[in-house]
Amino acid sequence: MIGEYITSNTEIVESALTQSLPPAWQIPLPLRESMNYSLMAGGKRLRPILVLAAAESLGGTKEAALPVACAIEMVHTYSLIHDDLPAMDNDDYRRGKLTNHKVYGEAMAILAGDALLTHAFYSISQAHKVHGIPAERVLAITEELSAYAGARGMVGGQAADMLGEQGITKLEELEYIHSHKTSDLIVFSLRAGAHIAGASHAQLQALSQFGHAIGLAFQIQDDILDIIGDEAKLGKPVKSDEKQQKVTYPYFIGMEASEKKVRELTSQGKEALLQANLVHPERLLQLADYLMKRDH
Amino acid sequence: MIGEYITSNTEIVESALTQSLPPAWQIPLPLRESMNYSLMAGGKRLRPILVLAAAESLGGTKEAALPVACAIEMVHTYSLIHDDLPAMDNDDYRRGKLTNHKVYGEAMAILAGDALLTHAFYSISQAHKVHGIPAERVLAITEELSAYAGARGMVGGQAADMLGEQGITKLEELEYIHSHKTSDLIVFSLRAGAHIAGASHAQLQALSQFGHAIGLAFQIQDDILDIIGDEAKLGKPVKSDEKQQKVTYPYFIGMEASEKKVRELTSQGKEALLQANLVHPERLLQLADYLMKRDH
Repeated sequence: MIGEYITSNTEIVESALTQSLPPAWQIPLPLRESMNYSLMAGGKRLRPILVLAAAESLGGTKEAALPVACAIEMVHTYSLIHDDLPAMDNDDYRRGKLTNHKVYGEAMAILAGDALLTHAFYSISQAHKVHGIPAERVLAITEELSAYAGARGMVGGQAADMLGEQGITKLEELEYIHSHKTSDLIVFSLRAGAHIAGASHAQLQALSQFGHAIGLAFQIQDDILDIIGDEAKLGKPVKSDEKQQKVTYPYFIGMEASEKKVRELTSQGKEALLQANLVHPERLLQLADYLMKRDH
Repeated sequence: MIGEYITSNTEIVESALTQSLPPAWQIPLPLRESMNYSLMAGGKRLRPILVLAAAESLGGTKEAALPVACAIEMVHTYSLIHDDLPAMDNDDYRRGKLTNHKVYGEAMAILAGDALLTHAFYSISQAHKVHGIPAERVLAITEELSAYAGARGMVGGQAADMLGEQGITKLEELEYIHSHKTSDLIVFSLRAGAHIAGASHAQLQALSQFGHAIGLAFQIQDDILDIIGDEAKLGKPVKSDEKQQKVTYPYFIGMEASEKKVRELTSQGKEALLQANLVHPERLLQLADYLMKRDH
């Protein structure tokens, strides 16, 4: 049931993404190909689906939320392109495909990432221009993206991750990285969808709590899967984090306690969500369960 | 006279820039230091001064235009940090100081650029939040920045520059690169300042023409100075472009014709500006002359 919801929304998102880049005649062709290669390289499309589900949970429409859904996927994609660069994680493969810089070269990969990040803000502005969402709300989404994806958010988490690679000794440090590298964009996705539908301050707060909890659960589940998963399912070598001597959640508290933590966080998140008086909380609740139980 | 205007506005911009980054306790310290190092590394502050002058030309205030002025300097700075990377131009020095990656390492330089670009959009949103500029106008600035600085604008110009490094054979190709690498952000700066002051569509059009002309003149003057200038004034080795076998404007049409082109473009730009019915066009006209005559 939630599986069907995810499948149909994935199709809607991917179809919108193929239309989301500027037309080919306006851009040097290799730059556009490099942007498109990573944007259309698959992935769970989790963040855009959360945008749509959050908008619908408040009675908003998918259509009006789609420009923001595309924007968050552009931001997520740019962060992966830059993370994979030789100077960062130096990965040759992602989701079983060559990474951007292995195909287009480092310089083009840097520029494709820059262009995707910049274009995300353009995409958001179309929620006002094309779909008539009030400028106040769309500007709030812009402001929140720049906070959650920037130095105080995702980029800050990435910097902390990089700085701590050899020396993370406390669980709190790992949680700081997880919460900024992963939860911040999930919180943003939920809040952005809610803004599209005109959420109240209290509803935004509840969605933030829900997002922070399921974001951390998602990342711990990722740590767990990275250890027990098999290569075919993940599309990357198992224990790649261990090989690079990265510290994961199970490293600190063990597998069993990590699995328990995922369940606890999910249930805390769902409780917070139920305080929000949403007209349709069902899909968000089901998505939280789905993320907890996923095996890939 | 225009010298004093530039000096006093440079001080105002630099003072605003020192306050423009998120507080240190919200960000991993090395990331903030890396962002701040390049943001405060000097430079002409031309783009932010154009934002202020454009706002004032329409009767707007400097104060309300400052968040946007800071934003454009963040975007300009991020583009320099990424351009200097080993995979791009591989420069060790800029304005006589070590480039960002030589001080903080490549990974941090990539992230500092990403964070500055992202934070520029946050800064713009403050024009509404702090200074009460209507959300419609501020959202228009956001949309235009994402267009002029993205794949269709500055990043596209940078990509074309990189792709053409060995093979530019036509003046039109060089003009494409110049117009997107340089003019686009100058056009944006003028339009953004004008939006702050509530410009009409016709005024925005006239400012775009002015910006495109003086932007190209600025870049041709740069090409000229790069050949005749001396190292001390420029803060970088003379003929660095020639050394990398980059093609410049004088390469195609000679020095004398290039100097004439700078004068012609400047006068065309000024004519376009005079069609805009600005209440105070003087500073913009003086800035155009100043840029044409500058020797550094």
